Amino acid sequence: MTNNQQTLSAITTLIEQMAQIGKTSDGGVTRLLYTSDWFKAQQEISDLFQTHQLKTFFDDSGNVYGRAEGKAAAEPVILTGSHIDTVINGGKYDGTYGVLASLLAVSELLEEHGQPQKTIDVVSFCEEEGSRFPLNFWGSGSVTGIHTGKDYSDVLAADGTAFTEAKAQYGFGQGDYLPAERTDIGAFVELHIEQGAILADAGESLGIVKGIVGQKRFIFTVTGESNHAGTTPMHKRRDAMAVATELIHKLIETGRKTDVSFVATVGQMMVEPNTPNVIPGKVTFTLDVRHPSKEALVTYHSKINGFVDQLRTADVDIAVNHYSDVAPVAMSEKLAARAYEHAQAKGLKSRYMYSGAGHDAQILGSVVPTCLLFVPSKNGISHSPHEYTKPEDLQIGVDALKQVIYELAYT
Amino acid sequence: MTNNQQTLSAITTLIEQMAQIGKTSDGGVTRLLYTSDWFKAQQEISDLFQTHQLKTFFDDSGNVYGRAEGKAAAEPVILTGSHIDTVINGGKYDGTYGVLASLLAVSELLEEHGQPQKTIDVVSFCEEEGSRFPLNFWGSGSVTGIHTGKDYSDVLAADGTAFTEAKAQYGFGQGDYLPAERTDIGAFVELHIEQGAILADAGESLGIVKGIVGQKRFIFTVTGESNHAGTTPMHKRRDAMAVATELIHKLIETGRKTDVSFVATVGQMMVEPNTPNVIPGKVTFTLDVRHPSKEALVTYHSKINGFVDQLRTADVDIAVNHYSDVAPVAMSEKLAARAYEHAQAKGLKSRYMYSGAGHDAQILGSVVPTCLLFVPSKNGISHSPHEYTKPEDLQIGVDALKQVIYELAYT
Repeated sequence: MTNNQQTLSAITTLIEQMAQIGKTSDGGVTRLLYTSDWFKAQQEISDLFQTHQLKTFFDDSGNVYGRAEGKAAAEPVILTGSHIDTVINGGKYDGTYGVLASLLAVSELLEEHGQPQKTIDVVSFCEEEGSRFPLNFWGSGSVTGIHTGKDYSDVLAADGTAFTEAKAQYGFGQGDYLPAERTDIGAFVELHIEQGAILADAGESLGIVKGIVGQKRFIFTVTGESNHAGTTPMHKRRDAMAVATELIHKLIETGRKTDVSFVATVGQMMVEPNTPNVIPGKVTFTLDVRHPSKEALVTYHSKINGFVDQLRTADVDIAVNHYSDVAPVAMSEKLAARAYEHAQAKGLKSRYMYSGAGHDAQILGSVVPTCLLFVPSKNGISHSPHEYTKPEDLQIGVDALKQVIYELAYT
Repeated sequence: MTNNQQTLSAITTLIEQMAQIGKTSDGGVTRLLYTSDWFKAQQEISDLFQTHQLKTFFDDSGNVYGRAEGKAAAEPVILTGSHIDTVINGGKYDGTYGVLASLLAVSELLEEHGQPQKTIDVVSFCEEEGSRFPLNFWGSGSVTGIHTGKDYSDVLAADGTAFTEAKAQYGFGQGDYLPAERTDIGAFVELHIEQGAILADAGESLGIVKGIVGQKRFIFTVTGESNHAGTTPMHKRRDAMAVATELIHKLIETGRKTDVSFVATVGQMMVEPNTPNVIPGKVTFTLDVRHPSKEALVTYHSKINGFVDQLRTADVDIAVNHYSDVAPVAMSEKLAARAYEHAQAKGLKSRYMYSGAGHDAQILGSVVPTCLLFVPSKNGISHSPHEYTKPEDLQIGVDALKQVIYELAYT
């Protein structure tokens, strides 16, 4: 076997091995933060790090590291990896592929080039999805210090389990491990399946991410008055549905007209009383908008305010709760250029692109130079047992990742 | 006391007396078909009929009658009354007021004018609301023969109770009583609270109904494809919410522009998967439209088809289920004119109007000359413990009803 064939075999074998932990009846994977399957997975990753000659250690949040010590121990550390948790009944690739690819890339680098100049840490972040507790990016956020000193004692899972208790059950959050926050990181490199169909539709194998889109989330509450559908004339109505649907139509149309990178989604709606023969007195709906440019998001936000002012009347009120505002995060141009040169040299079908989904690279990318690479996911599917990426593309990802890590840690 | 003062006292006393049966903790009334409170109420009405010198009998559906035999026994019967059932936690007036007002009107007519020319039957219909079983107008529909020979053995309440079993529990549907269907009725007169605010807003005391609006009900199913809110470009989306809201906006606006009597309501919506960060793959919503003219409803329906053809694409399908189509029912012009003359003679604040809500008069009105009268309901409220009509207006209703029955049965 050539080296590439070995990797190809290794990556698919490891993905299948990890997919056994938290396997669901229809072939998916469920590994929620601080559950037994999650803990088994982190232990398995720790064992794999050891098998591959990496020094392994947990931090106090439950992130697990595999370290290849560099010759220049004082230099900032090169971090690479992704997350091990999944959504409920998610796929085998999301997160896990990135952890395993980083492990293989570093292992091969050690084999081919010996000890690196800079220390390389492969990381398996404990949590990224926010599927059990309302704290997504808990793993990478702990590393960058977002959560340091914050009190999460009132954070609960949907079933009422306290975050701090679940964490303590596996020995974390007690100060028995290294603190999660780190200030010694010099760069971060992450490989992930694309959670969209851009690469798959174009038949391309590698996406080089220029930035992760910013995102604003809103909850609109339109309040009128419930009334009889037969006996209330149109001009006497305070119809929350009439106003909500007109507003949603404007919000989506404006998103569509902004530019090709702009997305606007009204995904959730609640109607009260939600009965065919009663005029709705209250309609609540969400709006999620994303774009690589902060300015475009701010401009859109001001348009929202305009629409609301235009449609709000004495009869029907519109309240807007702008409950989430995540700024776009640019990836390192220099590292992206290295990946691009690699792709050109290898004759890979590749492209520069933006990520419409959030990733750990977005958290690290706001503090250190960061590189995010994508491989295609069949039909753009993610968060599903149907996630699939061809072994050849998995391989292309590992090779590109290896190239970027080499540039960072060996040169 | 004058005669009017006696009636005024009698009507409010009787309404309070009946409101004790099925009384809810917040002062409302729940009397669902073929439940013990419903049966108690019909027995109480039967007792009241007897107390007022009316010959009482049940039919096999559970309608209860109080008869004043006419001199000309072969002449068609003059029927007057309303229904005794309520919605869950409904008010004291809806239905019950009409039954009691008919009883008092006939009782006074007997006292003042002796035996009528034609037989008068006061009826307490067993069911009108459709609140327990999906069979509204069960009482009046049984009388006009709508249900004769139909098999309702698979009709269930929401809790799984079979209609036929519930009916048998109180001895109905066994052939022990007179058959419900009648062909001897010559006219019907009903008095009801207005289930809307037209009279209340105008400070008027009597509504003389020209007709009950026709009603079409639709369920729209808009089907696209669920997808990631961040990674699916707008031009690649099959967004069911985008199409549904554009369609609803057109449906409501077109209803608003048709004419002042047209009402269009989208009261219920279901979104799948209904998650903020997923593009909705399916949106289902209801549309309820009503108008006094069949032609206006047919024209609107053809516009619906136009909108659907315009918005349906290869990516997003729209299916329309026109599941209910009730034709408008005209009330007797002659009887309405008698009521109007009475109102003019008494100097009452009154108006001709259409009913946007369904009533037993709509069922009888499609087979015999029918008169429907309204008194105001405070703030237009109905189907609520907050239903309220001033004693003076209750009195005005009884007087007008009495006048119409007199015209029909004594002249």
